[in-house]
Parts: sequence; structure tokens; C-alpha cells
Amino acid sequence: MKDVINVGLIGVGTVGTGVIKILNERSSEIERKVGRKVALKRVADRSLSNPEEVGIDRPAFTRRAEDVVGDSEVDILVELIGGYEPARTLVLEALDRGKQVVTANKALLAKHGLEVFGRAIERGGSIYFEASVASGIPVIKALRESLGADRITSILGIVNGTSNFILAEMTHRKKDFAEVLSLAQEKGYAEANPSFDVEGIDSAHKLAILASLAFGVQVRLEDIYVEGITHITEIDIQYAGEMGYVVKLLAIAKEADGEIEVRVNPTMIPQHNLLAAVDEAYNAIYVVGDIAGSLMFYGRGAGQMPASSAVASDIMDAARNLHLCVKSQNLAYPRMSGGGRVKRIEEVESGYYIRFSVIDKPGVLAAISGIFGQHNISIASVVQKERRKEATVPLLIITHKANEGNMRRAINEIDKLAVVTDKSILIRVEREDE
Amino acid sequence: MKDVINVGLIGVGTVGTGVIKILNERSSEIERKVGRKVALKRVADRSLSNPEEVGIDRPAFTRRAEDVVGDSEVDILVELIGGYEPARTLVLEALDRGKQVVTANKALLAKHGLEVFGRAIERGGSIYFEASVASGIPVIKALRESLGADRITSILGIVNGTSNFILAEMTHRKKDFAEVLSLAQEKGYAEANPSFDVEGIDSAHKLAILASLAFGVQVRLEDIYVEGITHITEIDIQYAGEMGYVVKLLAIAKEADGEIEVRVNPTMIPQHNLLAAVDEAYNAIYVVGDIAGSLMFYGRGAGQMPASSAVASDIMDAARNLHLCVKSQNLAYPRMSGGGRVKRIEEVESGYYIRFSVIDKPGVLAAISGIFGQHNISIASVVQKERRKEATVPLLIITHKANEGNMRRAINEIDKLAVVTDKSILIRVEREDE
Repeated sequence: MKDVINVGLIGVGTVGTGVIKILNERSSEIERKVGRKVALKRVADRSLSNPEEVGIDRPAFTRRAEDVVGDSEVDILVELIGGYEPARTLVLEALDRGKQVVTANKALLAKHGLEVFGRAIERGGSIYFEASVASGIPVIKALRESLGADRITSILGIVNGTSNFILAEMTHRKKDFAEVLSLAQEKGYAEANPSFDVEGIDSAHKLAILASLAFGVQVRLEDIYVEGITHITEIDIQYAGEMGYVVKLLAIAKEADGEIEVRVNPTMIPQHNLLAAVDEAYNAIYVVGDIAGSLMFYGRGAGQMPASSAVASDIMDAARNLHLCVKSQNLAYPRMSGGGRVKRIEEVESGYYIRFSVIDKPGVLAAISGIFGQHNISIASVVQKERRKEATVPLLIITHKANEGNMRRAINEIDKLAVVTDKSILIRVEREDE
Repeated sequence: MKDVINVGLIGVGTVGTGVIKILNERSSEIERKVGRKVALKRVADRSLSNPEEVGIDRPAFTRRAEDVVGDSEVDILVELIGGYEPARTLVLEALDRGKQVVTANKALLAKHGLEVFGRAIERGGSIYFEASVASGIPVIKALRESLGADRITSILGIVNGTSNFILAEMTHRKKDFAEVLSLAQEKGYAEANPSFDVEGIDSAHKLAILASLAFGVQVRLEDIYVEGITHITEIDIQYAGEMGYVVKLLAIAKEADGEIEVRVNPTMIPQHNLLAAVDEAYNAIYVVGDIAGSLMFYGRGAGQMPASSAVASDIMDAARNLHLCVKSQNLAYPRMSGGGRVKRIEEVESGYYIRFSVIDKPGVLAAISGIFGQHNISIASVVQKERRKEATVPLLIITHKANEGNMRRAINEIDKLAVVTDKSILIRVEREDE
């Protein structure tokens, strides 16, 4: 038995720097908790100018990730380069060489999860990926281990800090999207090109991983309906507030009767719902198990140190397992096939908020509610915000749960009415009581 | 290698019944996730009248717990009898015989943790105890594994569902303690003898376990300052609400400069704090790690199925480890000694809400604030609720962080003033910004 477990790390960005700092500064605590010394054996980064500055011994440093993966003394490969390639090739290579893999790469797992997990099983290795979803919030471990006896029935997650920051600021400061986005970019909460975050793509990556773990079958990115927050206006947030709701970008996964529903969309939730209180760039994942009931996991979903905390705990798990001679964790990965059929968005059921722009005259509500009735959509509440005879006013309707296909057909018909002057705005609604 | 992992269970109450149900109904899923069949080999209960009715095979059943502990084929002992004895003796015996132990017994671990954990280490076995704190909320695993690289700086927990239900009902329905307690007893949220819950003792047991894990040293029950909710009145909850606060029974653990603070007391927290939104009989544990930052874990902290979910996931963890030939998990248990000194309550710092009963006449506030000043207590806000010249009125003061010893001395002096007509009421205040 070697007296040290060797870590190789590829990709020294902000998270990599944090992980190196933890491994250096907490080495005695880590050794005590793992049972054996854990050492940073080899580190690769293509562009890092001064490795010593971030705590890397010069001899351990290389520009080539292949040097780390190819080092036979490296026991655990920590992949922090992100993206699909070369991450995929390097991770597969590491598994082929019998190494344990720790990764924070949500894109890789969302897209190539089946291949990567499959290879781990084939080679008797393990992949640790707590940091891939919601950083320091241990929701991966909760789904794989703590809820092991449960069947997960639903997940509602705020998993993109940038979008949550923007929506929360729009709500509290009554500002519009563009203005808040600039603020978020100044504060470093949003990238110069924010589309990955605000279009819901980042949330979809995380949802693919969460849903795959929850339901035990691979949910593909292309199975997920994705709608971002760029079309959300301050006025709808304000109206939502007046009606007792808050708008959040939710990643939603549900399973019922063997059918799976997966979608990312702006969602109105009641103000008293715990998720409504999740502000700033925080993340929270609400999980319902059929035995444990409702759970929520809350914390910092991004940022250098929260992500580093998750990666470091994964390294410690992997090292502890190696110390105990466990190479394959034997935890369930999503199966290759079988399991629930994923619904098309048109088959999904949801509550809806719709803001119609209508001419204020008698008979308008009758016309709209008549069309809703024909499409089997039941109205929960109606508010007309202003009175301006013969002019355009906003008419707000919240419906009970309805079928999305029916809703789309109804809106399509309604938008053609002569009394409707503009395209109707639709936001889905989640309530606990439906 | 045996082709089955055998579970022995002692204590068939509500949780035991739930666990048996899960083991029976989910056996194929459990086998798939564990890697080997998990069977209920032996079950003991002193008073169960009809074992078959709860899914126990007659030959597996015995009235004597010793039969289960003594069965050499039992690999995992599930202890659900609760209390100190004979639970302690049986658990130690099981460890001595090389069995893995799963327990939901918070009293046992809070009081005899050092002995029990010490025996596990000595015998190379493991104790799994997720259900001992907050049932189905996986906070034990989070503290032991997910936050492995972090140093925990504070824990604020709502860990007693009964007290939380009572305080939430008092808040929302504006009813007093006695009335709500009866309601809670009717609904089954409170025991006929509720003192264990409403006096804070149950919370203290859980806090002893959480703090011991968080700080790596055994925190003894007798180290914890405990104050229940029986003296909380509806009027103080109402005043708290008017000042932007909610009253919760919190289990609090903090570590700073090598000193530990552990206490259970009713606490005013700002309404926008996430813990303030934890209603009904739910539990939530807010944890701050020095790397991961703020996290919160929320869910059902009691009840048959949430507790059974946690016990079942522990059984699965233990079985998976046995399948992988791991008997000692090698996870840190609290050390026998060393670590932080536990502060006496008089050394603790906190914000305070005090309701004085004073004669409404000039000079009263000057007298009180003068005494506060002499004891180095700084006032954050003052509200006099009524104007009734020369009659008794409530005077509310919220202070900045102050030393508890100073506060007690100040209140003692103030309560002796001629203008103070009744004993002053004191509730501690936690704010994020102090």
C-alpha cells in the first residue's frame, strides 16, 4: 500500500486555484479525515503564467493535460477544464487507466453522461461530480445516497445564480431586464455573453444531471424544454407580486405513471413558498421523495470557494474509498435505457398566468373564457388592471392546471380576436395545491 | 461471500414499522442499488401483538432483543428502541460482535456518543445515524462528508417540529401558548407530556450531535444552555412581527477563536431570513462553512416515513459498504478530547429583545438606557407601545450584540427600579449583519 494518494488536476481556473489552496492549506485535516495523506502530484494548465503563485510546485506543473492523465502514479484525476472536448477524451482515458475521476463539468455529464458513466462501470472506477450541479450544495449525494430508498416524484430547482440574481433585482428594485443585466455584469454575476445563463441552457445542463439521477434513466439535453428569462418584463413581475406570486427561473422534473416531465422555464410560485425567498445569486433545489416527503437544499450555487468545497469533498470521498480499497463506489448511475418516456412540452400540465392586451369593452372576457372553455382550460382568477373604455388594457388570467397543447391552441385563437391588440404573454405557474 | 446481507431490527414502533415496510416493498430496488440482496433476518419487539400484520415473518420474530444482537448471521443491527438503556448495552454488544449499527437514537448518541463511537472505532465497525437528527433531512451526511474540507463556523437549526408548529400557529393565528399546545396535541404534533419538546431538551440532544460533528469534539448535553418556549407569549410574538422579526426555537452552535458556543433558546430572527419561512412541523438546519458559505437543509424533521427513509438509506449505505468489504467507514467521529472550550452562557454574545413593563412617565428611558450604558450594552431600537400617563405600558428595546452576563446584570438592576412594575421579558435576537 502506498503511503500517499496522488491527485492530478487539469484546468487551473478560479475553481482549480481554490482546490489547490484547500489541498495545500488543509492537508493535515484532510489526511486525518481520509486516513491517508493526499498529495497534489501533477497539475496541467495551458495558459497559467505563474504556477508557484497559486501554490503549485514547479516540478508538478505541465502545460499538457495528457501528462497528468498519463502519469501512472496519479490515483485521482480532477477535471476542471470544462466543456465537451478535450474533457471527454481525457476523462475516458483516465478511467481506462484505472483512475478515479472528480469533475465539476456539467456540460460533459449532461451530454456524454451515458458514455462516461458507462466507462466508469466497465472499468470498475468511479466518477464524483458533486460540483457539477449547484456547487457546494450537496444535492448529488442527497439524490444518490440519502434518498436511496425513495422514489423521487418531483424536483423544482433554482440552479442558475445569474438568472436568479436578475429576477430578484427586477422584483425588488422594479427595474427592467436590460438594466439589471448590466448591473449583474458589473458585479460579476453575469458573463459578458450571458446567453448561456439567461436563456436557460445552463439550468438545462444541471436538470439533465439531476433528473437522470432522480429517475435512474438518462435524460438527454434535447429532451428538455428550455425557455429563458429574456422575455420577462418588470410589469409581469409586478402583476405577479400583486397576485401573491414571485417569478423564478425553475428547472422542473417530475415523474408520474412512468412518464417524465423535464423543463426549464420562468415560473410563478406563491410568495409563501420557500423557493420564493431564495434571493441574490443563491441556488435551491426542492426535492420530493415518496417516503421522505419534501426536502430543500439551499446554498451558494456558484463562485470559486463553494465549487472548490464540493470538489475538495469529492477528492476526500475518492481518497477515502481508495484508502479502504474501494475503486467502484457501486452507486447507481442512470441506466442506459428503459424507464420513463419523456413527455413533449405539449403534453405537460401546468397552471398559467396570461397577460392579454385587450380593448376595454363589454364581451371581451366572455369571448376569451369561451375559448378557454372549449379547450378545457379552467380559470382560477381574472384581474383587469385598468379601465380605459375602447382603449387597450391589460387583462390578467391565472388558470388551474391545464394541458400545454390546449393552452397553446387557445392562445393562438384568442390572439386572433379583433379585441386582442398584442401578442399575449404567458408564464407558467406552480402551486403546491394542484 | 454470502449472497445476502442480513438485517436485524430491534424496536417495532412507528419508525420500525415503516422501515420493515420499505425493506419488504422495495427489496429489488435496494438489491440493485446495494449490489446484493438485503434481507430482514430477525426482528425483536417486547410488546408487538401481531408481527405478521406489519410484515414480519413469524420465524424471524422474537420478544428478546438479545436474540437479534446474538444472532451471528445478522450483519447490520438497526436499533429503534430509543432511550439510554438497554439501547446502549445492545449497541455496544452488537459492535463487539462485529456488526454494523444503524440507529435513530439521538438520546443515546447525545449522552453516550463518545463511548459508542469509541467502541465502533475500537472494533473496526461503523455507526450510521442519519435519522437521529431531523429525520429525513440528510444533514449528518452533509456535515461528515459533503463539508469534509470546510470548517463549520455556525449552525442555526429548527430541529423540533412540535415547538416550531406551536410558535408558527401562535404567530399566524394570534393565539397563546396553552391554546396552541392543545391543538398540537389533538393533531398529534405534540405528546400528552410535551415537556421534552417544548422545554428544548429534544433540540439539545440533536444539537449535541450536530455540534460534535461540526467541531470534531464531543459536546456534552450538560454543556448546552437550554431554554424552551413555554414562557413565550402571543404579545411578544406580535411585537416581534411589528418590528420585522419572527420567533423560532433555535439550536445554535458557533465556533470562533477556538471557543464553542452551544445553546437552545427562543430566538427572534428577521422575517426575510430563510429560517423564518420554515412553518408547521418542518425542520431546517442553516450551516455556515468557511469555504462553502451558507447552506440550508430543509424537510420533515419527524414522522414515520421521513424517519424510515433516513434509516433505510443508512441500511443501504451500511449494506453497500459491507458488499464492498468496508466495515469501518473511516469517517471522523468526534474526538475524545481537545478542541474548543465550551463557553458558559454568561460569556455568550447575542442581540436582545427586552419587553419592560414601565410606568409611563418622563425619565424612564433615560434610567434604563443609563444602566444599559454602564453595562456596555448598545441599544438598536426603542418602541413604546402605548401612552397611558402614570400607568404601566410596555417598552420594547432591541439591542446590538451584547455580552449575556452584562445583560443579566443590567436587567437585574433595571427590574429593581421603582418605575418598573413587572419582571422584564427577554428574547435573544440573531441577525446576519452582526
